[in-house]
Amino acid sequence: MPKLIDHEKRRKQIAEATWRVILEQGMEGATVRKIAKEAGLSLGALRHYFSTQDELLVYAMQLVKEKATARITEIAMQDLPPKEKILNIMLQIVPVNDETMAEMEVWFAFTAHFRHKQDTFDAQHDRIFVGMQKIIDYLDQFNLLQKNLDKEIEAEKLYALIDGLALHMMLEPQRVNKDRIVRVLVHHLNSICVGEPDE
Amino acid sequence: MPKLIDHEKRRKQIAEATWRVILEQGMEGATVRKIAKEAGLSLGALRHYFSTQDELLVYAMQLVKEKATARITEIAMQDLPPKEKILNIMLQIVPVNDETMAEMEVWFAFTAHFRHKQDTFDAQHDRIFVGMQKIIDYLDQFNLLQKNLDKEIEAEKLYALIDGLALHMMLEPQRVNKDRIVRVLVHHLNSICVGEPDE
Repeated sequence: MPKLIDHEKRRKQIAEATWRVILEQGMEGATVRKIAKEAGLSLGALRHYFSTQDELLVYAMQLVKEKATARITEIAMQDLPPKEKILNIMLQIVPVNDETMAEMEVWFAFTAHFRHKQDTFDAQHDRIFVGMQKIIDYLDQFNLLQKNLDKEIEAEKLYALIDGLALHMMLEPQRVNKDRIVRVLVHHLNSICVGEPDE
Repeated sequence: MPKLIDHEKRRKQIAEATWRVILEQGMEGATVRKIAKEAGLSLGALRHYFSTQDELLVYAMQLVKEKATARITEIAMQDLPPKEKILNIMLQIVPVNDETMAEMEVWFAFTAHFRHKQDTFDAQHDRIFVGMQKIIDYLDQFNLLQKNLDKEIEAEKLYALIDGLALHMMLEPQRVNKDRIVRVLVHHLNSICVGEPDE
């Protein structure tokens, strides 16, 4: 089905053009006209792939999620010491490089944009919380987790910590850099795990 | 100077009308026209108090910060056991009631709106980080903080935790309610403090 594949490929190119426009000009600048120009398409051609601006934005956001999920799945399959694996996974969510920072910016702009259009866009945030529960379970299975911890509360705490760090790295990059993020995350992992602290 | 006082009072009324419009319709709905209508003013009268939309938005955001700061200062002056005082202060930042939830919504919408207009609006986020450093110092002065903690990292972690919880309470209220927030915060305070855990 070469035609269907081309169609999907073109939709991805348009989504990537959308991210670039949002990164440069914010959501207010992300008009269909500017996105078409950035993608090198006519307005009519773009409308062939996405009939409304919201349809395009929802697709572009979906693609951000898929990319992050793919990176995390790849790390999850690697043969790494458990704590190192968990740290690497967390660094796919906190924006420590240009790619993840762009994703964070796009996520923030999208969330603000769709906040008052709940019927258009279901944020499905709970999927990330479920991921945090899995991380805590994973540490527990390897007998790395301290005894007597409330796993539900630890998952909620880890989730808040990661999203808080992500937000601050985006908004306060002068203070919150990658080194600092890694120090906080390693410190947190050590504080809930048994055994010798990793540095 | 009654005239000056009236002027400031009217500006506050307009700011409050702005919050209501943002809460209901999001930042996209916060046009000068709608805000004037919500405030019961003509467009010309509103322009007498704020000559541009951005000037009004910056003022309205400033007022959110002042209100939160006033509440925190009031608690700081109260005669309370140190850990209880700190918990109460943190609950002024995490949106656990209608007033703080409205502030959080407004903060989120403003931040997204001004993200790509840095010259118009200096977010001054670092002030909150400085507050977190003060909280950690305060616990230390009362000999409540565990020894050998890295106070800078603890302040960064506390800040991330609080803003992450605030974000999740706003975006995922089905799971993240006030009870859960208090449990996570008490758990965190106990994990960095010496002595018997409070429940």
